[in-house]
Amino acid sequence: MTVERAETIQLAHGSGGRRMSELVEKLFLPAFRNPHLEQLNDGAILPVAGTRLAFTTDSFVVRPLFFPGGNIGHLAVHGTVNDLAMSGARPLYLSSGYILEEGLPMSDLQRIVDSMGQACRDAGVLLVTGDTKVVDRGHGDGVYINTAGIGIVPDGVDIRADRARPGDAVIVSGAIGVHGVAILSVREGLDFDANLESDSAPLHGLVADMLSVTRDIHCLRDPTRGGLASTLHEIAQASGVGIAIEETRIPLWPQVAATCEMLGLDPLYVANEGKLVAFVPAAVAEPVLAAMRAHPYGGEAAVIGRVVEDHAGMVVMRTVVGGRRVVDLPAGELLPRIC
Amino acid sequence: MTVERAETIQLAHGSGGRRMSELVEKLFLPAFRNPHLEQLNDGAILPVAGTRLAFTTDSFVVRPLFFPGGNIGHLAVHGTVNDLAMSGARPLYLSSGYILEEGLPMSDLQRIVDSMGQACRDAGVLLVTGDTKVVDRGHGDGVYINTAGIGIVPDGVDIRADRARPGDAVIVSGAIGVHGVAILSVREGLDFDANLESDSAPLHGLVADMLSVTRDIHCLRDPTRGGLASTLHEIAQASGVGIAIEETRIPLWPQVAATCEMLGLDPLYVANEGKLVAFVPAAVAEPVLAAMRAHPYGGEAAVIGRVVEDHAGMVVMRTVVGGRRVVDLPAGELLPRIC
Repeated sequence: MTVERAETIQLAHGSGGRRMSELVEKLFLPAFRNPHLEQLNDGAILPVAGTRLAFTTDSFVVRPLFFPGGNIGHLAVHGTVNDLAMSGARPLYLSSGYILEEGLPMSDLQRIVDSMGQACRDAGVLLVTGDTKVVDRGHGDGVYINTAGIGIVPDGVDIRADRARPGDAVIVSGAIGVHGVAILSVREGLDFDANLESDSAPLHGLVADMLSVTRDIHCLRDPTRGGLASTLHEIAQASGVGIAIEETRIPLWPQVAATCEMLGLDPLYVANEGKLVAFVPAAVAEPVLAAMRAHPYGGEAAVIGRVVEDHAGMVVMRTVVGGRRVVDLPAGELLPRIC
Repeated sequence: MTVERAETIQLAHGSGGRRMSELVEKLFLPAFRNPHLEQLNDGAILPVAGTRLAFTTDSFVVRPLFFPGGNIGHLAVHGTVNDLAMSGARPLYLSSGYILEEGLPMSDLQRIVDSMGQACRDAGVLLVTGDTKVVDRGHGDGVYINTAGIGIVPDGVDIRADRARPGDAVIVSGAIGVHGVAILSVREGLDFDANLESDSAPLHGLVADMLSVTRDIHCLRDPTRGGLASTLHEIAQASGVGIAIEETRIPLWPQVAATCEMLGLDPLYVANEGKLVAFVPAAVAEPVLAAMRAHPYGGEAAVIGRVVEDHAGMVVMRTVVGGRRVVDLPAGELLPRIC
């Protein structure tokens, strides 16, 4: 369904999938057309005062506000810090825009704000400006938070979604689907034996360690909404290359796999908040991987595939049983309100 | 009532009045404490790459989405452009974060986005990065928009809320209360003879003209939420000075005065979106005023008072009938969801 034919906004328009990219391409891009926006990276890279500024924004509408491993406050810091980090930038400053719902317990707000403050200190960023609005009871969901962020891209770094090249190794920094399953576990009232917590984490330190091995990292993305599948698909499209991955190489925890199976979800499409996908020249794949594994947030990093000359714009996965499967964008909404 | 005693968020916490400043001082500032945030200006001024970057954010939750003279889209551009302009910065780049409610007509979104694009072109700023989330039906209000913005502060400009000095002239750029009354007119279903439209406008051009007269402008603020009264009160507090204004000198349109009287509102507390208040040394007041009057958005600019040695931290108004009245912050919520 095209934007023209969809008459109202549906949850799928916020899913990170096909409907969302249609909305961006057919409605947002034509209205604001400019070369910075058209890059369609996680943030814009802007020439300011002789340096390259990274600038990005993200709104957080996660439900519930509190979940195993954190809350909307630290998520709002990590999300924007990570969007900056995915351009190789060193994050410096954040803004926050709170939309509060009338009736929100002050103690909940206090917990969220404190958690956000702690996340800023842990990530070494300063929240320097903010805004607070209050909407009437029944017109919000407790708290929505927007954060925007500014960082500086180091010289010699040029990380973009359109830089994947045949031969590149595809590396994921750890086990997939953890954040999404942790959120679902509380939302669906599931009772797990395992203590599964959101993997939400700031990734700029991991990226800095990778860049200390080589400045020649081609693409970086954090596979949030739409999961690993959507991220790989976007890079295949942006770079005009094929991506071949091996299902057996993708780190996946048994309790995540089991929950996904129970709920009929494909872990490839489940959101992550503390993981990244990197495309690096094959020649540096091993040292980059070693640097990642030495970092607290990269211990389970693995090469999961490579960029190929074939099937440009498509992601093809060799499955556990040896078949081949096309990994496409999700068409509908799998997991609303996950971040 | 202190934050500690208020157990839940109330509409007044978003009003720009006393409750909101308590929330900022007691909850937000302690969590994020840093010298940039503590300036409490409309945006932060940050040292980046040898230049001074202005960085600001604002969320827009105006109800209704469409109102006489515009809609939430152009308001979201003007609001952030103006917050940048109030530090004297030249606005360069914006981000946008849309929170859409499931069921929003696509045609409404199209109108809003188109209007936002036009406002960017008119203001000469580029929207370079964005994010879209969708919340379930009944958990939003059609569209909430956050914009963050980046600008550059010219050399020699140092505009801050704490720079008002005794002797400074207080100038307002035009008639007050227009935006708030235009919104209320549709919300309350009032039928006016006069076509009253929101005064929402980008003010950086006006500020640039003022700065071409003198770099020594002490304070600039756009009196949005909480109106002229709250803005003057904030500057009196931040600068530790008294402010004396003359009611007869404040530009006020008859239809705004009449509507305020009918609704029991004080126009001093009604929101504006295309107006600014400036504090300038008395010696340059006349040429600055002349430059403002020559600009399309400053035709009705007027000196409304001056900064005095007496009553530090307080705003005192000589009323039409010759009495003296203390102009304080509003304690409660006068006009929710006005921007």
